[in-house]
Amino acid sequence: MSILVVGSVALDTVETPFARKEEALGGAASYFSTAASLYNQVNLVAVVGSDFPREHLDFWRSRPVNLAGLQVQDGKTFRWTARYHMDMNSRDTLDTQLGVYAGFHAVIPEEYRQCPLLFLANIQPELQMEVLEQMPSARLKVLDTMELWIMTARAQLTEVIKRVDILLMSEEEVHQYTNQASIVTGVRQLLAMGLQYVIVKQGSYGALLFGADGTYFSAPSYPLEEVVDPTGAGDAFAGGFLGHLSTVQPSFDNRYSTEDFKYAVVHGNIIGSFVCEDFSIDRLRALTMEDIAQRYQALVDCSHFDPRWRNTMGKQSLASR
Amino acid sequence: MSILVVGSVALDTVETPFARKEEALGGAASYFSTAASLYNQVNLVAVVGSDFPREHLDFWRSRPVNLAGLQVQDGKTFRWTARYHMDMNSRDTLDTQLGVYAGFHAVIPEEYRQCPLLFLANIQPELQMEVLEQMPSARLKVLDTMELWIMTARAQLTEVIKRVDILLMSEEEVHQYTNQASIVTGVRQLLAMGLQYVIVKQGSYGALLFGADGTYFSAPSYPLEEVVDPTGAGDAFAGGFLGHLSTVQPSFDNRYSTEDFKYAVVHGNIIGSFVCEDFSIDRLRALTMEDIAQRYQALVDCSHFDPRWRNTMGKQSLASR
Repeated sequence: MSILVVGSVALDTVETPFARKEEALGGAASYFSTAASLYNQVNLVAVVGSDFPREHLDFWRSRPVNLAGLQVQDGKTFRWTARYHMDMNSRDTLDTQLGVYAGFHAVIPEEYRQCPLLFLANIQPELQMEVLEQMPSARLKVLDTMELWIMTARAQLTEVIKRVDILLMSEEEVHQYTNQASIVTGVRQLLAMGLQYVIVKQGSYGALLFGADGTYFSAPSYPLEEVVDPTGAGDAFAGGFLGHLSTVQPSFDNRYSTEDFKYAVVHGNIIGSFVCEDFSIDRLRALTMEDIAQRYQALVDCSHFDPRWRNTMGKQSLASR
Repeated sequence: MSILVVGSVALDTVETPFARKEEALGGAASYFSTAASLYNQVNLVAVVGSDFPREHLDFWRSRPVNLAGLQVQDGKTFRWTARYHMDMNSRDTLDTQLGVYAGFHAVIPEEYRQCPLLFLANIQPELQMEVLEQMPSARLKVLDTMELWIMTARAQLTEVIKRVDILLMSEEEVHQYTNQASIVTGVRQLLAMGLQYVIVKQGSYGALLFGADGTYFSAPSYPLEEVVDPTGAGDAFAGGFLGHLSTVQPSFDNRYSTEDFKYAVVHGNIIGSFVCEDFSIDRLRALTMEDIAQRYQALVDCSHFDPRWRNTMGKQSLASR
């Protein structure tokens, strides 16, 4: 199954305490497309300026990334500049130049319209809504967002949340949107808006999957020795998540099982961890399914423990001692 | 097997954004003893003042907590006052009154000396060293510490670390002690000091177990709807960890298996999560092995996923498509 993504394609300048990379391929849709195309065909909807380096287009053409929905407009490509703090879990955005995104409207090419899997990457909620309206038959709609839209476009974001199946949020975003100190309580509030699942991204701590059916799953993170650049980890997570689902045949009633979603979250964590090992999408360029399978095994090994209760005191209560 | 603990017994005044509790039973050794006594006999070494409420002694006498090593001295019991921030993951210590701990020296009663399991709870490294010297035959020596000693008694702490088997540290403490940005690198540095295991406590994110033999285990945390008071969670973690080990018969060469340690870390997480559900040790008072077994099952259910690689693309590499 193919996956449609709409989101930003950008040129990023990123500074970490250890290195700096200028005008590298960035943007949520870039990370997502590169990640998900490890699994299946990705239909990209985005806009770039006439200054966008041809090599990036050539790279995507070498992968199953359909560029029919990528507009090239006169003007400048979206640029983003940020600096990471010492702990790499927080950053400051130093500069944002919207460029051709300022007047962008998403137009879904006819050939994309039957695409069953839809990822609304982190862009303005109004744009996300435009896409939803052009994709009435998408089978699974997954939404990402960010603090900026929670703060500046809350009402529109709320309308989008009500129309999708799965919402990805960082812990901070759950606190910001729901105003709840407890993630569990905040997520319950989100699920009550009609979502099937909420996935809470926890950065280097992994991710949590909460289902409207009561599902709760805590996916381990892969322990990276060195984080080179965490930019795009969340977008790559979404690429691994939807990428895996795109390889699964859902059951006769077109529903994935809970196990499918758990498995997909683990794939999200894996791809998210790989992305942090280099700047931009560079770690994904030569990544193979074998690399992913190896890291999958490492995550199984580091998170599974004896499922049987084997405390020698048995289940006797203290009162009976 | 019984467990010896040396550490603080205190009266805590704790303020959270939602409530306040005055002069409640606190101190690392109190949390540890109460937690570990759910599993086995605990031999407590500590000091209290003549103002220490008799009810706490009566409570421990109702449990398998041996008070032969608890000194009662003329003077004031150690008092600690703290206020938690909104996110409950950070706090400010508002006041510390050492009281009878100012001149305390640990004296291990003769009847404790053959105790095989030793927990050096968070107190001055000099005191921890005094205890080590009196317990040459302890089979497993576990050490906890805190930022204060890393900053003010680093050399002494280092000597203690070199003489124990297992070190418990929070993530921040690993950064502070090793001066490494990467937890993985920091832990490797600690293991090189001769430790068998390092356990990295991650608060609400769970805990990591790193072994000198290359073991890596990420234990999930239990998702609490409401955190009432996180004080003592680390000490209770240690109580669950050593409590479980005390119920295990180690193999003929007196060594626990890696699986034993993983299982013990999960027990640590469970007891640590219970403690947060109420002030002081209150949630542990009526806790039963059945409650622990139930939460164990919940952690299995929320963290295990299909261990088989079942991506339908198999292990083919992208290059071969």
